Amino acid sequence: MKIKAGIIGATGYAGGELVRILSRHPEVEIVWYGSRSYIDQNYADVYRNMFEIVDAKCLDDNMEELAERADVIFTATPQGFCASMMSEEILSKTKIVDLSADFRIKDVKTYEKWYGIEHKSPQFIEEAVYGLCEVNREQIKGARLIANPGCYTTCSILTAYPLAKEGMIDMSTLIVDAKSGTSGAGRGAKVPNLYCEVNENIKAYGVASHRHTPEIEEQLGYAAGEEVLINFTPHLVPMNRGILATEYAKLTKKVTPEEVKAVYDKYYAKETFVRVMGDGVCPETKWVEGSNYVDIGFKIDERTGRIIMMGAIDNLVKGAAGQAVQNMNLLFGLDETMGLDLVPMFP
Amino acid sequence: MKIKAGIIGATGYAGGELVRILSRHPEVEIVWYGSRSYIDQNYADVYRNMFEIVDAKCLDDNMEELAERADVIFTATPQGFCASMMSEEILSKTKIVDLSADFRIKDVKTYEKWYGIEHKSPQFIEEAVYGLCEVNREQIKGARLIANPGCYTTCSILTAYPLAKEGMIDMSTLIVDAKSGTSGAGRGAKVPNLYCEVNENIKAYGVASHRHTPEIEEQLGYAAGEEVLINFTPHLVPMNRGILATEYAKLTKKVTPEEVKAVYDKYYAKETFVRVMGDGVCPETKWVEGSNYVDIGFKIDERTGRIIMMGAIDNLVKGAAGQAVQNMNLLFGLDETMGLDLVPMFP
Amino acid sequence: MKIKAGIIGATGYAGGELVRILSRHPEVEIVWYGSRSYIDQNYADVYRNMFEIVDAKCLDDNMEELAERADVIFTATPQGFCASMMSEEILSKTKIVDLSADFRIKDVKTYEKWYGIEHKSPQFIEEAVYGLCEVNREQIKGARLIANPGCYTTCSILTAYPLAKEGMIDMSTLIVDAKSGTSGAGRGAKVPNLYCEVNENIKAYGVASHRHTPEIEEQLGYAAGEEVLINFTPHLVPMNRGILATEYAKLTKKVTPEEVKAVYDKYYAKETFVRVMGDGVCPETKWVEGSNYVDIGFKIDERTGRIIMMGAIDNLVKGAAGQAVQNMNLLFGLDETMGLDLVPMFP
Amino acid sequence: MKIKAGIIGATGYAGGELVRILSRHPEVEIVWYGSRSYIDQNYADVYRNMFEIVDAKCLDDNMEELAERADVIFTATPQGFCASMMSEEILSKTKIVDLSADFRIKDVKTYEKWYGIEHKSPQFIEEAVYGLCEVNREQIKGARLIANPGCYTTCSILTAYPLAKEGMIDMSTLIVDAKSGTSGAGRGAKVPNLYCEVNENIKAYGVASHRHTPEIEEQLGYAAGEEVLINFTPHLVPMNRGILATEYAKLTKKVTPEEVKAVYDKYYAKETFVRVMGDGVCPETKWVEGSNYVDIGFKIDERTGRIIMMGAIDNLVKGAAGQAVQNMNLLFGLDETMGLDLVPMFP
Repeated sequence: MKIKAGIIGATGYAGGELVRILSRHPEVEIVWYGSRSYIDQNYADVYRNMFEIVDAKCLDDNMEELAERADVIFTATPQGFCASMMSEEILSKTKIVDLSADFRIKDVKTYEKWYGIEHKSPQFIEEAVYGLCEVNREQIKGARLIANPGCYTTCSILTAYPLAKEGMIDMSTLIVDAKSGTSGAGRGAKVPNLYCEVNENIKAYGVASHRHTPEIEEQLGYAAGEEVLINFTPHLVPMNRGILATEYAKLTKKVTPEEVKAVYDKYYAKETFVRVMGDGVCPETKWVEGSNYVDIGFKIDERTGRIIMMGAIDNLVKGAAGQAVQNMNLLFGLDETMGLDLVPMFP
Repeated sequence: MKIKAGIIGATGYAGGELVRILSRHPEVEIVWYGSRSYIDQNYADVYRNMFEIVDAKCLDDNMEELAERADVIFTATPQGFCASMMSEEILSKTKIVDLSADFRIKDVKTYEKWYGIEHKSPQFIEEAVYGLCEVNREQIKGARLIANPGCYTTCSILTAYPLAKEGMIDMSTLIVDAKSGTSGAGRGAKVPNLYCEVNENIKAYGVASHRHTPEIEEQLGYAAGEEVLINFTPHLVPMNRGILATEYAKLTKKVTPEEVKAVYDKYYAKETFVRVMGDGVCPETKWVEGSNYVDIGFKIDERTGRIIMMGAIDNLVKGAAGQAVQNMNLLFGLDETMGLDLVPMFP
Repeated sequence: MKIKAGIIGATGYAGGELVRILSRHPEVEIVWYGSRSYIDQNYADVYRNMFEIVDAKCLDDNMEELAERADVIFTATPQGFCASMMSEEILSKTKIVDLSADFRIKDVKTYEKWYGIEHKSPQFIEEAVYGLCEVNREQIKGARLIANPGCYTTCSILTAYPLAKEGMIDMSTLIVDAKSGTSGAGRGAKVPNLYCEVNENIKAYGVASHRHTPEIEEQLGYAAGEEVLINFTPHLVPMNRGILATEYAKLTKKVTPEEVKAVYDKYYAKETFVRVMGDGVCPETKWVEGSNYVDIGFKIDERTGRIIMMGAIDNLVKGAAGQAVQNMNLLFGLDETMGLDLVPMFP
Repeated sequence: MKIKAGIIGATGYAGGELVRILSRHPEVEIVWYGSRSYIDQNYADVYRNMFEIVDAKCLDDNMEELAERADVIFTATPQGFCASMMSEEILSKTKIVDLSADFRIKDVKTYEKWYGIEHKSPQFIEEAVYGLCEVNREQIKGARLIANPGCYTTCSILTAYPLAKEGMIDMSTLIVDAKSGTSGAGRGAKVPNLYCEVNENIKAYGVASHRHTPEIEEQLGYAAGEEVLINFTPHLVPMNRGILATEYAKLTKKVTPEEVKAVYDKYYAKETFVRVMGDGVCPETKWVEGSNYVDIGFKIDERTGRIIMMGAIDNLVKGAAGQAVQNMNLLFGLDETMGLDLVPMFP
């Protein structure tokens, strides 16, 4: 019998991507397309690409009712929603993969400061497992509540993680300059997201204040075994999908490209979804489009003693829906890659 | 045992798309990545999206040798190549799905006039089956040589076919105004295909002279049972993939939208890859991106007595590689949709 | 002393383009930046490109007060606004160039039917001059109220006008398939205009029902001296600016390309802003971007007896603000091209 | 009498932009459209946007002959060309504005190392003036040979210059992460510059090895009064025009945003083409498109002690042709802004 999955926020871009992936997952049946904005409308009228693929109407966001029906609930909702709904009763009935930030940050004060809202169920933060599969695989397997990582954070962390873990870089010098496609901004009707405002344009935003900063700092801090403060600067790029993170740090000692490659391989050689491309290769977001891959390259600059690390993901897949399904596969003891054998589309 | 497939022209965009699709086809193994330009290079160095997915070097375009090894050969090559290579010996050993125009047009004089080259093996034109699966399914099943339809033609023909077949439109008034993404222009390094030339720009080209014209005319002529001459105008659109055909014709009598819909349903209701959206719906190329679907809508204009028919496909999938795999499935008695359960990607 | 110009709707895309052009017009001073949405905000905060160029705050849309201060008022407002404000008193004080559709259509019933709103000042329709400068230059010079033509219509009409006027085409067969950049959809925050919805996508819309249809029909009807009904199909293209109109019609007799070129030259050889490119040249929207030009090409198809005419404009310039300034120049006896020597930007 | 200007390399993108600007410059007449690739072709056939604006044929690249005819020569040519042609005789007859890198770097060894070619006329390097107008205005006025700065360098230097000059930032920590539109890659027909390769994609390139690095280092070294080594990482963005530089450095002491703003204003308040937007404003490339402006914003991150500086230019204008004309204006004693009152185009 298939796993019954419910999605709250099924009509946002991340929710739509969950539907795209789960509709071809051999062990999953979607039983709930939750969308407050489109209740009672045909899902395939909201996303015409799903015409004749999904035959269902949008439902509301009643998590209690959904918990009765679903084996797993994905919440692809604005910050605060999942925390406001969470209860022991729900967790006793179903598993939760939360794509919002509500349970990602262990320090509730940090969450409340960066997100500017009160956390409605801090009692579940400790239990929640940060669903970065390549790092926390074993804890994920037994969890009830998964905090699915953010898009920028997935890319930023995985790109630096092995070098941070091995003490190869000076964490106080780490700078993450990230570039994202526009789907990361969501499907809300706002002037700055209009075609004519984004097209033929690039800008930084949220400089020194973007909410993904503390999430990256916390996770890389665990890896490095020290408190980490970084500069993280996101940019909006005129493309639909893709995140590229260009990361700079001082090397703690002189190393060769081969030594760096070996460190990456130590952590990622067996990982299906991490492709270490190595010295001098500059990953392109197009190489991962539509897939769950993280592509990583690097370059040592001997003149300055810095290493430049580059990582690329599809923000809607490995940065959201794909990783959520990867987490679900782990939660239910399935092959971790099931339903995720998505070949990147080029061009 | 899996079907052994060889691809000549594996590093063009259509060839790359064949690799993308066949690499996940459960019954196929690719045994030959032919590419004259990249011989001996790793395929995954030419298309980095295939890193860790394809582990093979590019080979030459020796069809005779390939015929020994492969159960089916896909030729995604410039016009003239396949015809120049074709022989009874090759056809006795393997099946051919030719993505070029060499065997699409039954009248060799028409071919030679529009393509401006001599046909090197006219003796196989009669045998070749025009691989428009929804129209010629039964003939395809027993064929040795498939002429895979062109991208514009697939879209243009399927959009008008039922109304042409039923005599509902005056064929002498048919006008096809088509718009294509830039991957249709191929991966050749030419100034007009540079990013800065295509981006923020739209133009018509090949007006009253595009080579897909006689192919559309021949096939719609078979449907209508009369000789057909049309105006076909392609346009280059700043996007990677997608073809939209907007077609205009006088209705032969007053009909209702319901009657038109019924005619479309008569031919397509059971077709997996044709989605009839019906009256007033304007298909968007994004709804089919990455998939093998053809989406069709229409609108009757009572003021002018014309019907406007609209069809959308992904030019690299239903317009090339996807349809080629659909043909292969038919040739080998597989489920026609095998390997083609590609969900359109949005956004 | 400079002409005092006021703009109502200065923060829409057409209004913004008026500011861009007028800010460098040697004989104009902008005295009023009207914008209901941004009252009291710095104009340069709404459009940062105007930082240190415009130093003014947005004002309301009080046309009566503005009429006291301005020699000319441009209304770049939604349909109905200008008609609802119009009065003899205003027209006695100032000249009006209305960029909306309110005074374009002579038959008020046709206006009310296609626009679905009541016309609030039909008494001024007769007086209003349709501001297609190349056609109505003399009437414009003495006018008080100019109905600035629509973007699609400017392009569609000018492309076919000489052939219609000379009886060279059968008007009952005229089909206009038009493609527009997204700025034509305005700056309103709507989901269909979001970057991710428009990018990598093309679609038709308003099929057999777009409001520019009767405007084209009326004007080409005057040219042809008969009632004209056409099919007009607009498409949304992933680019900021530009309209391309591809027009199809039966020739009334056999003509040579030279004869067609001669007819175009008869009407346009002396026109600064119309560039007749002639036989076989396919105009590209990029060639006119940022400028007031209309580029025109054509191709005769002897097989079908049709001519394909192609016209390209920048929808915000010749299709809106540029033509409005051209009208203003005529109204005030200035050189018609003043402030409009904009060189198209490529790439 | 007008200044006679010749352009070598008039059919590249930078050359085309020179033509666009100079064709409307009130004091300039272009007498030579040099283009080795298109000799004897109509310039307006190579760039159709110039139809009816430029009526001239392309000529060869004979600088000696051109020196007889022109008051100023712009060389928008590949590296090495200008140096190979330079002579005392040419400089005695005409002024040179070289848009290539040949005379930008004072240390010939550094030039030869980064560019990989021998410098053919090192004797003129000392005399050449680095044409960054806002920094070297007075030397430019009396020069014969101007080394017009690179696109990335103009943006990178001007964004950091005041803080470097005032010792406000630790130069050893400076990192420049730059993003460029694709016109910077030139009009050469290469696969990586094809529409389908660039569109929907972002990548870094030339990491730790891009040729603009030593140019930035040399100029900022002069400003800081010390040798400077930086990390400079360019990225290719799917847009035609625009460069955004995001720059990171440690502050040498605690400062307020007001103090930083004051330093920028000290250097730029009187500069027409530098728009200091100040604290927290993130410049967008669209705000400067088509214009000669540099827009600058910044943000202090108190948590890390770093400042993030952001600068935006149009790479073809302030990054190439516009700055070249600005230099020409200075060379000939004209108003520095003449012909450069280009309003940024939005959208």
